[in-house]
Amino acid sequence: MIEEPTPQKTPLSALGEFGLIQRLTEAITLKNTTSVLGVGDDAAVLDFGPDSEVVVTKDLLLEGVHFDLSYTPLKHLGYKAAAVNLSDLCAMNATPSQLLVGLAVSNRFPVEALEEIYHGLYLACDRYGVDLVGGDTTSSQTGLVLSVTAIGHVQRGTAVRRSGASATDLLVVTGDLGAAYLGLQVLEREKAAWQANPNLQPELQGHEYVLERQLKPEPRIDMIRLLRDLEVQPTSLIDVSDGLSSEVLHLCDASGLGCKLFESKIPMDPTVIRLAEEFGINPITAALNGGEDYELLFTVPLSDWDKIKGNPNLTAIGHLTESPQRLLVLNSGQEVELKAQGFQHQ
Amino acid sequence: MIEEPTPQKTPLSALGEFGLIQRLTEAITLKNTTSVLGVGDDAAVLDFGPDSEVVVTKDLLLEGVHFDLSYTPLKHLGYKAAAVNLSDLCAMNATPSQLLVGLAVSNRFPVEALEEIYHGLYLACDRYGVDLVGGDTTSSQTGLVLSVTAIGHVQRGTAVRRSGASATDLLVVTGDLGAAYLGLQVLEREKAAWQANPNLQPELQGHEYVLERQLKPEPRIDMIRLLRDLEVQPTSLIDVSDGLSSEVLHLCDASGLGCKLFESKIPMDPTVIRLAEEFGINPITAALNGGEDYELLFTVPLSDWDKIKGNPNLTAIGHLTESPQRLLVLNSGQEVELKAQGFQHQ
Repeated sequence: MIEEPTPQKTPLSALGEFGLIQRLTEAITLKNTTSVLGVGDDAAVLDFGPDSEVVVTKDLLLEGVHFDLSYTPLKHLGYKAAAVNLSDLCAMNATPSQLLVGLAVSNRFPVEALEEIYHGLYLACDRYGVDLVGGDTTSSQTGLVLSVTAIGHVQRGTAVRRSGASATDLLVVTGDLGAAYLGLQVLEREKAAWQANPNLQPELQGHEYVLERQLKPEPRIDMIRLLRDLEVQPTSLIDVSDGLSSEVLHLCDASGLGCKLFESKIPMDPTVIRLAEEFGINPITAALNGGEDYELLFTVPLSDWDKIKGNPNLTAIGHLTESPQRLLVLNSGQEVELKAQGFQHQ
Repeated sequence: MIEEPTPQKTPLSALGEFGLIQRLTEAITLKNTTSVLGVGDDAAVLDFGPDSEVVVTKDLLLEGVHFDLSYTPLKHLGYKAAAVNLSDLCAMNATPSQLLVGLAVSNRFPVEALEEIYHGLYLACDRYGVDLVGGDTTSSQTGLVLSVTAIGHVQRGTAVRRSGASATDLLVVTGDLGAAYLGLQVLEREKAAWQANPNLQPELQGHEYVLERQLKPEPRIDMIRLLRDLEVQPTSLIDVSDGLSSEVLHLCDASGLGCKLFESKIPMDPTVIRLAEEFGINPITAALNGGEDYELLFTVPLSDWDKIKGNPNLTAIGHLTESPQRLLVLNSGQEVELKAQGFQHQ
């Protein structure tokens, strides 16, 4: 009623998520010397002391958009909300130390339900030595909203951005990929079966690994420590939240380089390959586009290869190139353009 | 479906907002030496350097709970979301320096609408010398959700908590009170009139002050600077978000003391007194229980009285007492118990 008229209407879909963030934030110029790095990476970097830099990130999770309460236990939801934020700190090479939580719920939740969510948050905090230092809880007229801010620190000058890679740098990924996406497929299948026949017991046995990867992802703080122990300083770094393709393209974009990624090198658990076939999905599609694995993807100079090659947690999956093309080398030897399929977060 | 059964169900209403937060956070013990102060005050205090401490706060704002888009211009919404978080930093005696923003919207919003929100956020950031250093934007199936995290810093050891006051300390408030609540009444009245007859033009003229106080509150960073210039270090400090009564009781609770508050001393703008009468509200009720004024309430030792008394921005409204009673001394001389009426944030 006292709103000014908006002369132009661009639908959100015209920009896409990254285009929208870009559009909304392009006018920012940092004013404070304490602001080392702002919008555009996995987290901000702040500078408040002579030896360490503070790293902060935040994430908003909405019912029906980021999670489905019909198969997400509330404790797992709390754990995952913490984990995905801690993962963003890992993606900066930072050590997490604090968490703040905002929670909005409608009256349909009893106190015990919120305690379950907090229980999950505390489990994650305990496991990763993080303090929950703040938060607010408010009412919601509709679904559940969880907003988490995570804070960590790095030794001065050692925060690793998405940019910074050189041509010929190796692309390395931790752990294995695709499992979280298949865990989601199992949950969706059992939900559909249960909706068709509420007396049916869900068949989850034998799928523990993929379900755990979907419902209880772990931020790879252990890998950040491992890299430090191996004396490997990545030249660029990101976590795999949207799918490997998307993250590889982010690193290429940020460093203005191309890449060659080898299908044969992408690490997958045997259960993922078996389950993908059961669902009629190409396993490589789950790994490339499934997302939510929360592994770390980074680049290192070729000279670091010797430090990395023997470690079962680290897999070199390709390398960057001076040529701007982003190529996926299939097992057949054929080279195709690497594309982010843009699976939505469930 | 894989949810564990919850044996006990306590309705949220049985605890109330503060009881709920208390219940959800009572098991926390801080583990890191960098965590100076956690949940329970206006913001957390972190320690990452030898000279300064980092102060962080976050707030979640939901459409239909914290704001009504039928009379809240989006630019004002963005500005206010930033302002209320910066106010929480002021309430710690901190100087704001960074902001992170999470935004969830449904498809009914065009890009320009989100730009309006960001425009408001940027206006507040510019005005207060704050950097927007991070954020995410996500889709919502229902209303608009805004989540803001604000970060600031204080010189080591100068963060001011809600606790720390002594008996006989003066209770001092900045600015004037009750205007934001009356601004809301004007907006609600015009909304009702407009709903009854959409051809009606809203009558907002002459109400600029109270509307501005409701729609565009200002964090009192200027008062934090003033106190520093006056060499006044408050013994306890809070911002007036829920209403003066509620905040005075918070300070009393935190320091384990009682208080005497004088009705005759509570600062109100003449337009507030006039408008309250027009609405048939006792002006003192608006000041005590209206909330959203975002002024600062603090305590100082009696010995600081001389530094404060001449300043038109600062009003001593009472004092703390050893006796645990919290008393409001009415203009008639009668003493009544001070109670938080618990107006909900609109």
